[in-house]
Order: sequence, then C-alpha cells, then structure tokens
Amino acid sequence: MRWLKFTANDKTSWGIVEGDRVVAVDGDPFGEWQRTPRSHPLADVKIELPLMPRTFYCVGLNYLKHLKEAADKRGEVPNVPDRPEIGYRAQNALIAHDEDVVIPATATEKIHYEGELVVVIGKKAKHLTEANAMSCVFGYTIGNDVSERSWQKADRGLWRAKNADTFKPMGPWIETDVDLDKMETIVKVNGKESNRFHTNDMIFGIKPFIAEMTKYFTLWPGDVIWMGTDGASPDLKAGDVVEIEITGIGTLRNRFVKETV
Amino acid sequence: MRWLKFTANDKTSWGIVEGDRVVAVDGDPFGEWQRTPRSHPLADVKIELPLMPRTFYCVGLNYLKHLKEAADKRGEVPNVPDRPEIGYRAQNALIAHDEDVVIPATATEKIHYEGELVVVIGKKAKHLTEANAMSCVFGYTIGNDVSERSWQKADRGLWRAKNADTFKPMGPWIETDVDLDKMETIVKVNGKESNRFHTNDMIFGIKPFIAEMTKYFTLWPGDVIWMGTDGASPDLKAGDVVEIEITGIGTLRNRFVKETV
Repeated sequence: MRWLKFTANDKTSWGIVEGDRVVAVDGDPFGEWQRTPRSHPLADVKIELPLMPRTFYCVGLNYLKHLKEAADKRGEVPNVPDRPEIGYRAQNALIAHDEDVVIPATATEKIHYEGELVVVIGKKAKHLTEANAMSCVFGYTIGNDVSERSWQKADRGLWRAKNADTFKPMGPWIETDVDLDKMETIVKVNGKESNRFHTNDMIFGIKPFIAEMTKYFTLWPGDVIWMGTDGASPDLKAGDVVEIEITGIGTLRNRFVKETV
Repeated sequence: MRWLKFTANDKTSWGIVEGDRVVAVDGDPFGEWQRTPRSHPLADVKIELPLMPRTFYCVGLNYLKHLKEAADKRGEVPNVPDRPEIGYRAQNALIAHDEDVVIPATATEKIHYEGELVVVIGKKAKHLTEANAMSCVFGYTIGNDVSERSWQKADRGLWRAKNADTFKPMGPWIETDVDLDKMETIVKVNGKESNRFHTNDMIFGIKPFIAEMTKYFTLWPGDVIWMGTDGASPDLKAGDVVEIEITGIGTLRNRFVKETV
C-alpha cells in the first residue's frame, strides 16, 4: 500500500495511491483510518511532506563505496564502522517532493546529493531484537541527504552542512510493501543517470540498526531512519533537478535554486 | 509570566503559575489562549514536559571551565570555539520534572549531569541579527543534559551517550521574564551543592547563536536551544536526586534509577 500526504481543494489529508489516482482517507495510517469516496488524479494534487518525525535518525556511513570515496578525498584509509551507530538530522531541513532545495547564499559550489532509503516507524518499540526488529516498521520512503561539503569539513559537527533549511527532501510517499533485496537506488541529475547501487547493500542493515538503537531509544510512530548512501555526487548548481528513484517505492524529485536574500 | 504544562483530574493543559497555584488556560502560549476559572495547588498537579520541540538544538561547549575540565581529562589543550556552532539532541530522551532518569542496564558508572539554560522559541524566524535576535524568544526553562562519558568517548557521535531514553529532563516550566545577567545556575546532588556558575557567562551568548543559526535555519515556535553548561559533575548512581536551580526560573529535579530489563 502506498500512503500519500497531499493537499487538494485547500484540504490536506492522507490518501492511498492507486495507479494514477489518490483516494482520500479520513484519519491517518498510524492510527484509525477509513477510505472516503473522494479521489483525485495524482497529477492534480500538491504532494506534501509525508510526516514530521519526532526524532529524525540518519546513518552516516553505511555503504563501502561511499566510505572509500570520502576517505580517498581526505587522503585517509577508510574507517569502516564495526557496529551500527546512528546519527541525526534536523526537522527544520525537511521539504516535500517537488519543493525546491535552496542553496544558501553563502554556500560554496560543493553541494552534493545523497540518495537514501528511509525507514518509517509505525509502532512504539523498545528492546527489539534482530528477529523482531521489522515488527515496528510501517513502510519506506526516499530521502535526499543534501550536503555542503566545505562546511562539513570546516565545522564542528554537521549543523549547517547537512541541516540548512530545505537540505532534506523526503517523499514522495510511503510504500508499505517492498522487497528490500531487489531494490536499486538510481540517481539522475537533469535526467541523466549519475549513480546506481543496490539499496540493501548496507554495511549494517535495518535489523541490526533497529536492534541496537532500541537498546537505548524508544522508537515512536512517525520516527524515520535514513539508511545512508553509496557512491558520490557531482557538484550541483542552481537549476539542476535531482531525481532519486528507489525501485518499488517511486521517485523523489527536487530542483535546486539559489537563495536570494 | 510562568507557563506550566500540567495534568490534573486526567486533563492535560497549559496553565499560569501564580504563587503556589496554577491557573488553567484554554489554548496555548504560542497561539490563542485565555484564563479559565479553574486553578489548582501546584503541589497537587502532575508537572508535564513543557513541550516536544520540532528541532532540539543544543550547544556542546559554551563555558570555559567545562571546556578546560573536559580537555584536562583527555590530556589535551582546550580547543575554544571561535564561532557559535550549534549541535542537536534527540526528542526521545526528553522527560519532565520529577520523572526518573533511567540509567541503562549496560551503562558504566560515568553518568554525569549538565545543568543548562534552555531558550524556548516563540516565533517563526529566519535571518535575524544580534540586534533583533531576542524577538523570537518566548521564554526560558531548565535542562539536564545527562551524559554517559564512557560512551561519549567510545562512540562515533553522541547518540547513546547523550540521547538514551530519559537522558534529557526539561522543565519544570517556562519563565518569560528573566534578567539573564543576574542568573546563577546551582546544581545539588542529594541536597548538597556540587556546582554553581553565572548562567550567562557563556563563550557565545543567546544573541550570537540565534543570529548565526538563523542564517541557515528557520526557527519554529516550540524549538528549544540548550545553551551548554559549566563545571563538571561527580559520577551519579541509582538513588541520587539531582536538582538544577536557575535563579529567576525555578528548580528542575529528577531522581536517577537503574534500568531493570
């Protein structure tokens, strides 16, 4: 099932995507809900951010190629994680499918995409094991972990490098039924493929992350875990359109524009 | 004015603290509100977490003594920040005044408090200057940035060291009228003073932080900025009660207990 948060006729609600239409739903997928008689062509609705997570989790380094390329650029040997350690991103940075990524006026040209699988939590959970980790997962969406690499290098922490307003596109919808091992992540810049990797070729997969995280954290419905990215990005500039497709989910598309202050 | 989120007779609402009573309010302080005829003795209500922030900002190193003590322990020279760089904490870890900090079963004895001034944002804001930075501030509360120092040392990032469930007590209420330069932060463990510092003796104060942050981030009503701490903490153990008083605001009190899994 494919859950979409959308606005039509000035009303924002959840809906279920069926082919090229969305059927409006009363309630929300994390609680009580029921189908309504209202439906709209998908092309006619405004796609909204699926949700504002309570806690916004994100894995930093979870694919070997990305790790190696990042280390090479620093002239270092890759420091491969030996256990699943989670990081965070900031809610202010989230935007929806088709909304613009605004490159800050003071940013350098080192603006990069990172196409990521996003796990959406559906149930309150603590102390899960790898055997029952997936019981708290509601579905999957797509994230673009936009990064300003010169800030990433210069700053203490990732605050503006990763969390500037609009740097975290997420969407377009949440797909509940996927085959993780068959998924590919394909990134296109202005329609041209620039990156492709097997989505589930992670150093640590979803189960070990959830098992480790829930030793310490309660996961809540609507929390998201961005699972990291593979490969590298070209420098992006104003006018570029980045599309991140994950097979079985869909395509997250955002245009990059320059901030005008 | 002193804003309290509380529960009485199974109803949770905002209220205004007046002496030793709380007057219930319809609505909330960030939008429309009005006083009701209902009031309760403060001692009879359950004090709730004032709010769940959209983004949970926290300054890591913002007082010279804390910085020096941390560096000394590592056998390093203090690396004093040369600009206001913000960090983050995780929402899952927040608890209210008088709720228990649960020391995870796997934690070491290196459990420390950090008493912090918390700035509560009241208005959506971007691109503020030091001159108008305070226009977005609603009020102030108190935070205890509980930390497990062995994890802080061993891990990539601060995930479980700072963000384990219950590691972020915040409250008891939000005070809108303070004199920052007169405030002292006083920490007591089991009633005995263990730390005292001038709250506003920060390396970078609230204005430079808000000015720098809003170059990149939109602040939203209910966002919080924890401003860092001074000094050091003894190792805390199950049964200890930590009280953090900030003069002009009040006292945040939490008992530490051991997790039983």
